[in-house]
Amino acid sequence: MTQQSYAILGSGAVGGLYGAMLARAGHDVHFLLRSDYEHVRDHGWRIESHWGDFDLAQVNAHGSVDTMPACDVTLVGLKTVNNDSLPSLLSKPTGAGGVALVLQNGLGVEKDVAQMIGPERVFGGCCFLCSNKVGPGHIRHIDYGRIVFGPYQNSPATLAKAEQICAEMTAAGIEVQTSDDLNMVRWRKLMWNIPFNGLSVALDASTDKLIGNESSVDLIRDIITEVHRAAGACGASIDSTWIEKTIDHTRTMKPYDSSMRLDYLAGRPMELQRILKTPIDTASAAGVAMPKVQMLYQMLVFMEAVRRTGGA
Amino acid sequence: MTQQSYAILGSGAVGGLYGAMLARAGHDVHFLLRSDYEHVRDHGWRIESHWGDFDLAQVNAHGSVDTMPACDVTLVGLKTVNNDSLPSLLSKPTGAGGVALVLQNGLGVEKDVAQMIGPERVFGGCCFLCSNKVGPGHIRHIDYGRIVFGPYQNSPATLAKAEQICAEMTAAGIEVQTSDDLNMVRWRKLMWNIPFNGLSVALDASTDKLIGNESSVDLIRDIITEVHRAAGACGASIDSTWIEKTIDHTRTMKPYDSSMRLDYLAGRPMELQRILKTPIDTASAAGVAMPKVQMLYQMLVFMEAVRRTGGA
Repeated sequence: MTQQSYAILGSGAVGGLYGAMLARAGHDVHFLLRSDYEHVRDHGWRIESHWGDFDLAQVNAHGSVDTMPACDVTLVGLKTVNNDSLPSLLSKPTGAGGVALVLQNGLGVEKDVAQMIGPERVFGGCCFLCSNKVGPGHIRHIDYGRIVFGPYQNSPATLAKAEQICAEMTAAGIEVQTSDDLNMVRWRKLMWNIPFNGLSVALDASTDKLIGNESSVDLIRDIITEVHRAAGACGASIDSTWIEKTIDHTRTMKPYDSSMRLDYLAGRPMELQRILKTPIDTASAAGVAMPKVQMLYQMLVFMEAVRRTGGA
Repeated sequence: MTQQSYAILGSGAVGGLYGAMLARAGHDVHFLLRSDYEHVRDHGWRIESHWGDFDLAQVNAHGSVDTMPACDVTLVGLKTVNNDSLPSLLSKPTGAGGVALVLQNGLGVEKDVAQMIGPERVFGGCCFLCSNKVGPGHIRHIDYGRIVFGPYQNSPATLAKAEQICAEMTAAGIEVQTSDDLNMVRWRKLMWNIPFNGLSVALDASTDKLIGNESSVDLIRDIITEVHRAAGACGASIDSTWIEKTIDHTRTMKPYDSSMRLDYLAGRPMELQRILKTPIDTASAAGVAMPKVQMLYQMLVFMEAVRRTGGA
């Protein structure tokens, strides 16, 4: 079977890392870049990874989708705050019938894409990794790295397509597995993302600080418990041992600034809608309140407004 | 009837203001001072008040309770974080059978004093005022000012004593009223203190910022609603219109840094136990959870630990 071609929309800490690994394995990979387009075009990628460092000198770098070819698989790694631009970005790389694998954070992100290209061509996944873009064309991947993904709509054809992508990623050195329960995968990731992204901003603290204090761990546990309960009401049955596992995994994680904290510190918009508001609304529609998650959201909206306007 | 003598334990924004007004009216008033003892002894009080500025040159200033006489009424205006020292402070000024009027913030503060001098000699009250000590011997009282107080145990004798104190304070120019429902008075004050003290620290914002943003007002309303519900379960029946009234009153208040925010900014311990933890525990014992208040407490405990120890 010939290797599939890949388009990478959003070549940051996630898309840059996985795309570079696929390119290293011989795939035809096309990266859409913004601020570091010229740097990557001229100098390629510098990947520092606990899976092994490497440089990739020759990169198909694009400053616009206009020059991108249609690809078999489009990885969507954009920040969800930019999803307004998705329709204009997706049409070229998916133009010949290719599929999209949405690796964005939060809930409801596949739905956005499914409305554009049809649900049977949409896959979604969560990335469990500590990775940041630390400079132009420079990714630093310090811990973890696993992708868990699956079809937005399960069918023999979509499940087979997922296995094909999974096999290619595995061959490229990526730790990856498929799932036929994308909803569960998303909610399980939210059990980490909501407390640790949110509190890292609200309490101005990296993960090691949050996990090193009894009071913040109590709060983290309360928030994870709310998310776990909401997940169950939303059809995502997750074993309750995952509440403590989520905390314990973070204890063994290297000190890390979450993506939301990096966005906040850098003055970029935070992914408040997809990581917090959509889960709150989805749980609420299923009859479950998440008061502490809601409070976290209310605080973060205030903090973003203060930063933007001085609080008015 | 001869004028009663007053001892002021904790001569800060509250005790300093009311004590100076009583002294101006001719009462024998004895102030216990700490950091600005020598300044007040030598230069007296400088009171800036929206009720009228005045200076008080001759002040009975004490650097220790050892020199204080027994008084008819002891006003307790100390921060509750110093309540460990109350037994040693109260014995002299209340030594001849005088009463204590506890003007501290939070819940459960009269109980501490009642265990020392007996419940029939204890009164408690809440001060609704915007006042800060802005320098040695210098009080700035910018808005409001009313005291609402009453007996810890209602009886004809204690209610009559409350009226006597109230009449003297009124004659001294203080806006004051008595109540025979101290529990209700305390919970109604908590409806302001919990959201505005707590969020002013957690969100690093003065009251005008908190009240000027839709998301923080939503959160404030949620927190006040939790406190209102807890109050009802704890025997304090407060009309539900007080939820919006508490917000509306704050809208018309001059921009103000709460006492907890000033304590936090100055590196002093915050009154987390009496303003947040005791209400949470009291409500919990009455079967009512306050999840957002609890989250606020958890965050503030973390913030205080980080400031003290770097988060360990």
